[in-house]
Amino acid sequence: MGCTGYAEGVAEGFLFDRTTRVQETPDGGWRAEISPRWNIFGVPNGGYLAAVGPAGLARLVPHPDLLSVSAYYPTKTEPGQAFVRAETIRIGKRVSTGVVRVEQAGEPRVHLTAMYTDLSMADGPTHVETGPPAFPPPEECVRAEGPIAPEFVQNFDMWLTPESAGWATGRRSGHAEMSGWVRFIDGRPPDPASMPLFADCLPPAIFNLIQPAWTPTLELTVHVRTRPSPGWLQVRFTTRYLQHGHLEEDGEIWDESGTLVGLSRQLAQARA
Amino acid sequence: MGCTGYAEGVAEGFLFDRTTRVQETPDGGWRAEISPRWNIFGVPNGGYLAAVGPAGLARLVPHPDLLSVSAYYPTKTEPGQAFVRAETIRIGKRVSTGVVRVEQAGEPRVHLTAMYTDLSMADGPTHVETGPPAFPPPEECVRAEGPIAPEFVQNFDMWLTPESAGWATGRRSGHAEMSGWVRFIDGRPPDPASMPLFADCLPPAIFNLIQPAWTPTLELTVHVRTRPSPGWLQVRFTTRYLQHGHLEEDGEIWDESGTLVGLSRQLAQARA
Repeated sequence: MGCTGYAEGVAEGFLFDRTTRVQETPDGGWRAEISPRWNIFGVPNGGYLAAVGPAGLARLVPHPDLLSVSAYYPTKTEPGQAFVRAETIRIGKRVSTGVVRVEQAGEPRVHLTAMYTDLSMADGPTHVETGPPAFPPPEECVRAEGPIAPEFVQNFDMWLTPESAGWATGRRSGHAEMSGWVRFIDGRPPDPASMPLFADCLPPAIFNLIQPAWTPTLELTVHVRTRPSPGWLQVRFTTRYLQHGHLEEDGEIWDESGTLVGLSRQLAQARA
Repeated sequence: MGCTGYAEGVAEGFLFDRTTRVQETPDGGWRAEISPRWNIFGVPNGGYLAAVGPAGLARLVPHPDLLSVSAYYPTKTEPGQAFVRAETIRIGKRVSTGVVRVEQAGEPRVHLTAMYTDLSMADGPTHVETGPPAFPPPEECVRAEGPIAPEFVQNFDMWLTPESAGWATGRRSGHAEMSGWVRFIDGRPPDPASMPLFADCLPPAIFNLIQPAWTPTLELTVHVRTRPSPGWLQVRFTTRYLQHGHLEEDGEIWDESGTLVGLSRQLAQARA
């Protein structure tokens, strides 16, 4: 009755849900279709792959919420069919753990370990040192769009803070930060399953320092801390240590209510 | 000829090397002995387990240096014999990736994914935002020792900054930080293989906020950024977000030359 919540959205087929669906195969694995819609210049986004893989595991565990995922990317995944091997390691009372391998052409392309829990049952002390960063509101930010933006960007309503957006017009801030507001353009509300995608959704923070030709992700870990409220996500990515081409990118994701909903870190390479 | 380097140290048997040795079993796995020497009140330290597991994998890959390890701890490991199943996922030119399962009583206790590289071959840009934190020198810090300290602590020469050490005498700083100087007490130089242990070597940072009965690690990821120089390591661990009992602990490890050698993050629980 007038409800346009998540369940109905899935039935209608939001892009994220359509492109992270897995189908069981006769041998107990899962088939996934790696969509080109999340490509960054021809290559599937690492956060998207870290969301597709667990979709196979999610069916095998009793807990509803992704709590943590660590994705290793030994080699490049391509858009198209993939085989997902998911295996539970332990079904616990509070937390379930499993591993997932995404294969193409018989080769492992992504290896993931993930934990699930029921975030609504989390109990224990709360002490948060800082609230969300103070950004200008979306309407005072710079929209990520335009003919040179990767396919990926078109799936979001994405606004970079003016300082972060400097790189795009040749005015690098000199500080490796990329921050802004983001939500799915088709209205799908954010949830724990989509956090890995949001954790890798902005251009690399180091673009405000240098612009390497390629910044492949080697490892990405995302912790989901709270079920996000519907609406905007406020995201901030920073790199403090670029050493001989290796760098970390640390992400914080806040929901519209000002609650930290996810933390991420990736190890990446900056290649000329 | 007067060389007292790492290779000789291994032969003599530094504690870390003796307690992370693995022996091949006839079926192609590895046997490890989880030493009680790294126990924290009866339970093996998570960083130690994240160092033992890769010891099996290190023998299978051509690259010498641990670059990244992500350890998931679905259930408690006990001191004593363990079976280590290590498998390479991909041997690449720059990076090799593999997975490791540490089993006891036929059950997976720790699941690890790790990458190896040759850190001496890393090339690319360097831009480091901050140098090592300004701590008082070790002699002006507070030594971690004494009859109530866990067995674990006795293996280190470990000095906490006065502010960090406040919790031990009931003067919590109110800021979730634990910082100090640390090195192996037997003189073993730090190296990439031992970084996971150093990444989990101090009391939990939240002890300066609250002191829960138990803070089990759910997930620990360590990135090794540079081969450390011999001598002291300067370590800082902070927790910014404790939410309903879930918390991250972020670690930075600097060597005596002032170079960042490792970054770590763990997801843990604070349980009453």
